[in-house]
Order: sequence, then C-alpha cells, then structure tokens
Amino acid sequence: MSPVCPPEFLVFANLLADASGDVIRRHFRQPIPVDDKADSSPVTIADHEAEQAIRVLIESHRPDDGIIGEEFGEIRTDAEFVWVVDPIDGTKSFIVGRPIFGTLIALVQDGVPILGVIDQPIGGDRWTATADGISMLNGAPIRTRSCPNLETAIMATTSPHLFSEHEAARYGAVEQIAKYVVFGGDCYNYAMLAAGQIDLVVESGLKPFDFCALVPVIEQAGGLITDWRGGPVRLGSDGSIVAAGDPALHAAALKILAG
Amino acid sequence: MSPVCPPEFLVFANLLADASGDVIRRHFRQPIPVDDKADSSPVTIADHEAEQAIRVLIESHRPDDGIIGEEFGEIRTDAEFVWVVDPIDGTKSFIVGRPIFGTLIALVQDGVPILGVIDQPIGGDRWTATADGISMLNGAPIRTRSCPNLETAIMATTSPHLFSEHEAARYGAVEQIAKYVVFGGDCYNYAMLAAGQIDLVVESGLKPFDFCALVPVIEQAGGLITDWRGGPVRLGSDGSIVAAGDPALHAAALKILAG
Repeated sequence: MSPVCPPEFLVFANLLADASGDVIRRHFRQPIPVDDKADSSPVTIADHEAEQAIRVLIESHRPDDGIIGEEFGEIRTDAEFVWVVDPIDGTKSFIVGRPIFGTLIALVQDGVPILGVIDQPIGGDRWTATADGISMLNGAPIRTRSCPNLETAIMATTSPHLFSEHEAARYGAVEQIAKYVVFGGDCYNYAMLAAGQIDLVVESGLKPFDFCALVPVIEQAGGLITDWRGGPVRLGSDGSIVAAGDPALHAAALKILAG
Repeated sequence: MSPVCPPEFLVFANLLADASGDVIRRHFRQPIPVDDKADSSPVTIADHEAEQAIRVLIESHRPDDGIIGEEFGEIRTDAEFVWVVDPIDGTKSFIVGRPIFGTLIALVQDGVPILGVIDQPIGGDRWTATADGISMLNGAPIRTRSCPNLETAIMATTSPHLFSEHEAARYGAVEQIAKYVVFGGDCYNYAMLAAGQIDLVVESGLKPFDFCALVPVIEQAGGLITDWRGGPVRLGSDGSIVAAGDPALHAAALKILAG
C-alpha cells in the first residue's frame, strides 16, 4: 500500500514554515554571532529560534508526535508521526547573505517521509508535497524535466568536500561526464530539480533532517531520489543521495556511483 | 590624482541595469534553450537580449563611448570612456533558477574602473559605487567588515575548477586555513563581501567583464581587490583575483597566493 498523508498535515506544515520564516527574515543579513557546533559546522541564533518556533507549535498542536530537529535533538521518536526539521539547511549560505538556504520540514510515518516542505523565506518560494499528492511550488504543480543522458545533464552539488576519498572518485566520474556542474545550493538544488531546472544532484554525508523533506517533493514531481546503492531514502538512510529528474538519468548516474 | 566619476554616469548606469533587469526577469525559470559558447560555457536568449538592451541605450545616449560586452564583443575601445558589461555573470546559476547571478556594468576610463554596478534583478538587490563616491546597496551605504585573520575568515569561490594545477595548490592552502568556504556565487560573493557578509574571495580565470564592475564596489566599501601578485585590477588585468574586506586579511591571503 502506498503511503497516504491527510491534507490537514500539509496545512499544519505550512503554519510551521510561516513561523520559522518570520524568525529567519528578522536575522537575515544582520550582524549576528556565528558559533561552532561539535562537528565544526556553523550555527546562529536564527537556527535556534527558527527551530524553537517550530517545536513550540508541534508541542502545542500535536503533542503526541515525535520531533527530530537539527539543533535541539530528538523526542518521542517511537511515535507514529515524527516531524523531522532543519530550521536552516545551508547555514553557510544564510550567514553569507545568500537567499538560497531553506527550512526543511518533513513528516515521517514508520520511517517513511510522507510530507515535505522546502521553504525559502527570503525569496518567498515554498515547495510542498505529500506522498499521495502533488509537488507544488508556491501552490502551482511542478514536474521534473526529461533528460535521460548524463552527457546533457546539468548537475549540482553543495561542495566538492562532501565526499570520502572513495566516494570522491565515483562522484568525480559522474561530474566529468555531466554537461555542467554548479556548486553551493544545499536543499535549493533539490528544490530546483523538482521544479525542472536541474537534472541531477549527487551528495553524501547528509543527515535525516537534510534529506527527509526532499523525498516527497522530488518523487511527487516525477523524479527519483535514492541512496548510492539505489535504496529508498528513509529516516534511517546512510545520507548518500542521488536525485534525478529523469529515471533514465538516475539509472546512468547510479551505475557509476554504485561501482 | 584619484579618479573621479561625475554623478550623471551613475544615473545612466542605473538606467542600463533597469533595462537589463526587465529582460532577465522575463526569462528567469522559463524553459529557454541553453547554447554552448566556444569556451563551452552556457549562454541563453536572456544573456543576449539583456546585453542588447544595454548596448542600445549606450549607442543612443552616449554614442562616443566604447563598449566591451561578454556576448557581443568590443567597439570603440580607444574611447575615453568604455562600458564593460556582463549581462548575466553566473549564467549557470541563472539557468538552474538561483537568484544569485548578477548583471555587471562597469565604466572604465584609461583602463581604470571608475564606476561599478552589480544588479540582482530577481531579489531586487543593486550594488553601486563610483571611484570618488561611496559603495551602496539599494541606496544605503555599505562597508566591509573587520576580519584580520585567515583562521577566522569566511571565504567564497564559485568553483573549485577555476584554477590551474599550480594555482589550485595555492588556492587550496588558503582554503585550508580559512574558517569556512562556500562554493558557487559568482559576482554575488564580491557583492556580499562589500556588504560585510563575506571576508575573502579568491578566484582565477576571470575576464574584464567579470571583474571591472567589482573594483569600485569593493574599494569604496573599504575592501581591497587585487590580482594574485598584489597588482591593481584594471581592464588589462590577468583575471586572478583576491578580494578581502579587511586589508590585513588581504595581505595574509596574498602572501600565500603570490608564493
């Protein structure tokens, strides 16, 4: 049975993104301190306050649901429904003033992402999808585009430093065949893939709060997103990601990445 | 004598950016063909029409001035004033739907950039500066920020593939010391450096239409922009660029890059 997602979940997820967006817009391009996390990645008051705004709403409106957040950890992860939240995916983009980071909100049921929101609160672009619905950008349906061949694919990756040495060789082999590669972008790359502007995204080392929200947005737009072995992207996935707008392109990239 | 730039030039440059922005907004995120140029870089109808809109205005309002444009070449380059134009700097960003490309408009006198405009027509951000004036973002003065040490610097570069093998080693040595590096961005990186959000940009292989407009914007905001030997960036520069918001940081990076 395919997963379903009642429409009221999407209404609530939009409320969550509205709340985080209000916080983030207040801090964008302001001289705020940047702190280091244990993994040396940056974090700011905007990340903290945006996640807090989302958690407060979940606790008050859906107190039985679980939460996995990038900044404030896990609670009730054995609940039927778990919200997986990255308040600012692309904190480096945020701190340098680029409007291409995003707030990621996923709803996961039994480990399967059944709802995804990618919100860009500066440009005002919001991608939404539910597992049994359609993928939308600002309320209008979106589709990935046809591009069956790696040779004509426009690909994107956030950083050449995402990969282990072993992965870097395989990633490099894909990049070398692709037509163009653009760097930077974080979740924005997947969002533009769903909207038919990018053909392929290859990354690794992503965390559940980085990838869960992407799954419905890409799949319901007609694309494919799996790990580097071709397995489905679920809460427990290993964080290697290959996403393509065209299933034939996905197969071509996967053939190289899976080794 | 320091270069001067009469205020009417900036009024006219704003008109040029208004005209190119109108064209670019019409084509953004539309399914337009992408062609390959001789150097394998992409080009679209948006690049062509935006540069044409600018050239028509220069020909009708300032017919004695020279023009150097990325898409339609040079004319009257021996004139006292030469307009150096890149209609879309960051065409790859443009074609993947990222609002962080820019239209670059410079006015050069005797090879020296005396006016620069960096226009982002989707987000509606415009950076302007004249050689004897101040650097502004949307009409408000901007300043670079203090960051004397490479160890605490946030740096940016468009792509790790900009560099020759020899350059890549030196670039890599700088990147390794810097606190964070963000990839992608094109002219947007220099614009955000001028606005005090990025500390250091290191690139190579840039063309006059990529770098001339950056010079007044960065220098009049308090930053430094030179080639990798520390020489001033002029029309005839070699396209190696190191820009820093803090002169001490510039010196630290230059020491490594100059070898």
